[in-house]
Amino acid sequence: MSLVSLRTFDPAPAFVDAELATLSPPARVGEFELDLELRHAGLRRVRIRYEINGDIRHPTVFVAGGISAGRHVAANAADAADGWWDAQVGAGRAIDPSRACIVSVDWIGADGTLDAPIDPADQADAIAALLDHLAIGRLDAFVGSSYGAMVGLQFASRQPARVARLVAISGTHRAHPYSSAWRALQRRAVQLGSLQCDAIDGLALARQLALLSYRTPDEFDERFGAAQVVDGRVRVPSEDYLDHIGQAYAMRTPVTAFLRLSESIDLQRVVPGSIETPVTLVAIELDRLVPVADAYALAQGLRGETRVRVLRSRYGHDAFLKEPAAIAAVLAEALELPA
Amino acid sequence: MSLVSLRTFDPAPAFVDAELATLSPPARVGEFELDLELRHAGLRRVRIRYEINGDIRHPTVFVAGGISAGRHVAANAADAADGWWDAQVGAGRAIDPSRACIVSVDWIGADGTLDAPIDPADQADAIAALLDHLAIGRLDAFVGSSYGAMVGLQFASRQPARVARLVAISGTHRAHPYSSAWRALQRRAVQLGSLQCDAIDGLALARQLALLSYRTPDEFDERFGAAQVVDGRVRVPSEDYLDHIGQAYAMRTPVTAFLRLSESIDLQRVVPGSIETPVTLVAIELDRLVPVADAYALAQGLRGETRVRVLRSRYGHDAFLKEPAAIAAVLAEALELPA
Repeated sequence: MSLVSLRTFDPAPAFVDAELATLSPPARVGEFELDLELRHAGLRRVRIRYEINGDIRHPTVFVAGGISAGRHVAANAADAADGWWDAQVGAGRAIDPSRACIVSVDWIGADGTLDAPIDPADQADAIAALLDHLAIGRLDAFVGSSYGAMVGLQFASRQPARVARLVAISGTHRAHPYSSAWRALQRRAVQLGSLQCDAIDGLALARQLALLSYRTPDEFDERFGAAQVVDGRVRVPSEDYLDHIGQAYAMRTPVTAFLRLSESIDLQRVVPGSIETPVTLVAIELDRLVPVADAYALAQGLRGETRVRVLRSRYGHDAFLKEPAAIAAVLAEALELPA
Repeated sequence: MSLVSLRTFDPAPAFVDAELATLSPPARVGEFELDLELRHAGLRRVRIRYEINGDIRHPTVFVAGGISAGRHVAANAADAADGWWDAQVGAGRAIDPSRACIVSVDWIGADGTLDAPIDPADQADAIAALLDHLAIGRLDAFVGSSYGAMVGLQFASRQPARVARLVAISGTHRAHPYSSAWRALQRRAVQLGSLQCDAIDGLALARQLALLSYRTPDEFDERFGAAQVVDGRVRVPSEDYLDHIGQAYAMRTPVTAFLRLSESIDLQRVVPGSIETPVTLVAIELDRLVPVADAYALAQGLRGETRVRVLRSRYGHDAFLKEPAAIAAVLAEALELPA
């Protein structure tokens, strides 16, 4: 990693309202730019947007999710809106901002301005630069789910002195070739739409396809019934749901961000033996994207203390979002945060 | 079913060359038109193209495959080109035209001229009409794979007196809601392409998506390696293979045929208790399209003698095409054709 320049844009800590600020741990959002040497695209100016939730003197837990999850992990004093992991991060939750300082980022590329191949190792370098910027020497834990788990493994491999433990949920040292094919076809859906200036429909279709990989037949069987003929066409009941999922995602996601972060997953490659950090791996039995066998292969190669927890969930890959109790139990065991 | 008119186009039996004709069992292709009452679209003129391979006085075996498989099941005296099931149908194979008369059809809708919802039960009615046309009172066996298994179940349900036994491979009494969602998204890929007069690319993408449902992660893991960055884009090794699969399919398949036959799978609904015919069900453990659980549910509901054979194959749903030895063993056991 090469940090050629560093320019800060940190706003003053922002509080939503006085009462919340009084009752809640401090929180703030910030951003800064740096020139980062990308593995596949050379030196690029990137912007790192981050969020801090909790007192910086507490144990520091970096939290990262999937490619569509950003810095706003949970509602906090700086941003009262729902986060993507309120089930795990908040007062009384597994990661409580009154006992931990939660740090998180928007992935580089997430704003759509970086149109280049982004390696998960580049994300790890950006996080290291953020820690420098925040004067955080070492993370007490890195908790990553999905793409976040991949980046966590990269971080542990490259920055062994800067992370005490890693929890990697539904993400491993490699992209499975079948899952890569699935993603490549999602990117083609976007391209097919883009050819006719219909990027929204292409991106919506890509997201719908991705959703199938995040879930399981068991869930669909419980939720959806038989097909109907409507206006001379066959319509299956899940299409209404998929329409909603696709449209909502396409409206909030830059096409370039989706393409480059989807690609990034496929670039994942970590040598398990390069990691000495203690790791808790969480794998989901019905995960159609990250087979449990890959988690076992990773566990066998890791050099530090390793725990593997296998959960069975009808939500498959999305268990980290949809199985709050099981995930909370794993986090409590893995993190051992002070009471 | 209503047969309002019947018009025949049967050509004289055609033989490829004199020697083959001498050595091989007789074979011929034919077609006829009829007005068929479609469940979801009323009376329609449809054309039924069929192929007969073997002496009509032998035990009659109707053979049907997936939505993209047609009447040309195997090379024969009327058409020496490779068929889609040469591994099972031919001299010395499980279904030998010197001992059986193999009858097969192009699905109604397969030529792209029928732009209406087609129920699998409509296909069963068309087959019954063909048997009338050929003066075949009763099939000794119906062997169907994938969509062909679905249609076989419809046929057994509706024509109990016309079929002595059924072998249903990788197809059941219903479309699984998750698989239906997967197909609905394939149809959306076609629509996305069609909007910009790029039906070929849309259809190619649909076929590529379908292929993922026909195969397994195990197979992709064995065949394909890690992603590469090529000209500033990430390319995964399976893309070359998928390109070939998609283009070849799109060049030979009318868009309407794909859409209507894909829809047809989603309309599958048979009450298992309506079937008294002896049935051999073959299910594949890693089938991502037809879960083994659905085969068990079907078996529990059938009223006649029922055998279930579960195979494990890294080819998943495509095992009926890619596991010739295992399928041959099942067919030999199920059909008990005279030596």
